[in-house]
Amino acid sequence: MSNKINKVAITGGTHGNELTGVYLINKYKKNPDLVKREGFETVFMHTNVGAMEKCTRYVDKDLNRTFIKNDLANDMLYSYEDILAKNINAKLGPKGSEKTAVDFIVDLHSTTSDMGLSIVIDNDNKLTWQVVAYLKEIEPNLHIFRWKGDTKEVSFVNSITKDGFAIEVGPIPQGVLRADLFFETEKLVGYILDYFEKLNAGKLGKKYKTIEIYDHIKLLDFPRGEDGDINATVHPNLQDNGYFKLTKGDPLFVTLEGEIIKYKEDKEAYALFINEAAYYEKGFAMCLTEKKVIDI
Amino acid sequence: MSNKINKVAITGGTHGNELTGVYLINKYKKNPDLVKREGFETVFMHTNVGAMEKCTRYVDKDLNRTFIKNDLANDMLYSYEDILAKNINAKLGPKGSEKTAVDFIVDLHSTTSDMGLSIVIDNDNKLTWQVVAYLKEIEPNLHIFRWKGDTKEVSFVNSITKDGFAIEVGPIPQGVLRADLFFETEKLVGYILDYFEKLNAGKLGKKYKTIEIYDHIKLLDFPRGEDGDINATVHPNLQDNGYFKLTKGDPLFVTLEGEIIKYKEDKEAYALFINEAAYYEKGFAMCLTEKKVIDI
Repeated sequence: MSNKINKVAITGGTHGNELTGVYLINKYKKNPDLVKREGFETVFMHTNVGAMEKCTRYVDKDLNRTFIKNDLANDMLYSYEDILAKNINAKLGPKGSEKTAVDFIVDLHSTTSDMGLSIVIDNDNKLTWQVVAYLKEIEPNLHIFRWKGDTKEVSFVNSITKDGFAIEVGPIPQGVLRADLFFETEKLVGYILDYFEKLNAGKLGKKYKTIEIYDHIKLLDFPRGEDGDINATVHPNLQDNGYFKLTKGDPLFVTLEGEIIKYKEDKEAYALFINEAAYYEKGFAMCLTEKKVIDI
Repeated sequence: MSNKINKVAITGGTHGNELTGVYLINKYKKNPDLVKREGFETVFMHTNVGAMEKCTRYVDKDLNRTFIKNDLANDMLYSYEDILAKNINAKLGPKGSEKTAVDFIVDLHSTTSDMGLSIVIDNDNKLTWQVVAYLKEIEPNLHIFRWKGDTKEVSFVNSITKDGFAIEVGPIPQGVLRADLFFETEKLVGYILDYFEKLNAGKLGKKYKTIEIYDHIKLLDFPRGEDGDINATVHPNLQDNGYFKLTKGDPLFVTLEGEIIKYKEDKEAYALFINEAAYYEKGFAMCLTEKKVIDI
């Protein structure tokens, strides 16, 4: 925490059909002064131009699940995203080293789900959480989601560095640039860079002690038929309600035939990433979380 | 108009990532009785299984722009959708013949744009308009859009038959099944089949004389840079407001730099298909229309 920040990376287009990040990086390319601050360097890059050109999430596999240390070292993995990941890791990492090329990665995402303005964190490092608490103070509507993952090792782009996170905003359909959330995302990135400027200059007023988060419990799949295809979707109550509080007996899914499937667990949970398009193939309809205040 | 209806086709999955139609056809496959009515036959089919499997709009080209008579007769056109179109045309058409295999096609679509529950019509045939007026009476919220097209010849799936139209519902992200609009679409299809049952039985109470429509004026593209890429998106005023009334001076687009681009035309217009993901590559941000009552 006492070390200075030397270099920060802003990455976008990790999923080629999430246009908020794609166009924010375009904006920075046109006007790099927007991300210049005193005392450290900011780099920015499109991480998956191949997917951007097709306007798809990925070409061969999800880049944001590809940063697994053994895989990055495995020369026999040669899909488009495996090769990309090796390049990005060389540029920003390498992952797992004591001294990575950049100190912090902010990866820009959007979701078809009603997630509002949110941060997805996958590490427990002090600096990361201080930045997030600073953001939450400026933007009280910001939601903090601690992700426990769908892979054994956290394999996000931002896992290359010890510190970092993803910005996740929605609802935005894939392939659509939505003005309001574009400018909100830009503002958040600006605040993050301000934080590092203040940190390096010793001008941060305080350390944050606690923060309210949504803590990953589990991923919940759609009901599916014998063929593996979904035969129900999320109930209308949840559709446009990110961070929906589920209590035993609440409608959860509705089948194509109109039958309501209820939430059966005794424990209350908050549902998020509800009906995200990209998660149909991954096998989850939403993520169940616990709302809590944690020490940081 | 006096002729009986013998066969009606309900088609879905023409765009493989528009799941409302995909899953409604799934539902009919599981329970064909849902579309059985007295006095005529209903057939239903997935039109683009290749695109459905990839969860993309198309494999090689937009199937819903492929039903052009000369192209259907051209054996040298052999892309995936060209071949599909020939098959579908053989099954339901052929297009342009006096006696097509089916009398009426309803093609099921969804859009990322806030179109609500709407019908897109591309012909001026009496039967089509009587069906639509009947639907509008039952569902007053239904919007009727008369499409003048982005191809010289109307080339929709439903253009195979003289009569027919597309159901278009939104906002729905690509790759998402939204419960409310799924059941609304199903209801509409049911009413359409009811109409034909009544028509054949001579039980229709009246002929409709007029209907309120949104009549195509022109397609409006996003502002683009020299590289052809967009450098602005639709203004937040329009984003979630389907059928937005534009008056000279209204904000229309906002550039990535935050500059507002205004609507400059003297004539008022209603904007629809605002910020539809699939239209970025086609080169339009919205469709401008005129609201009017027409004789039918």
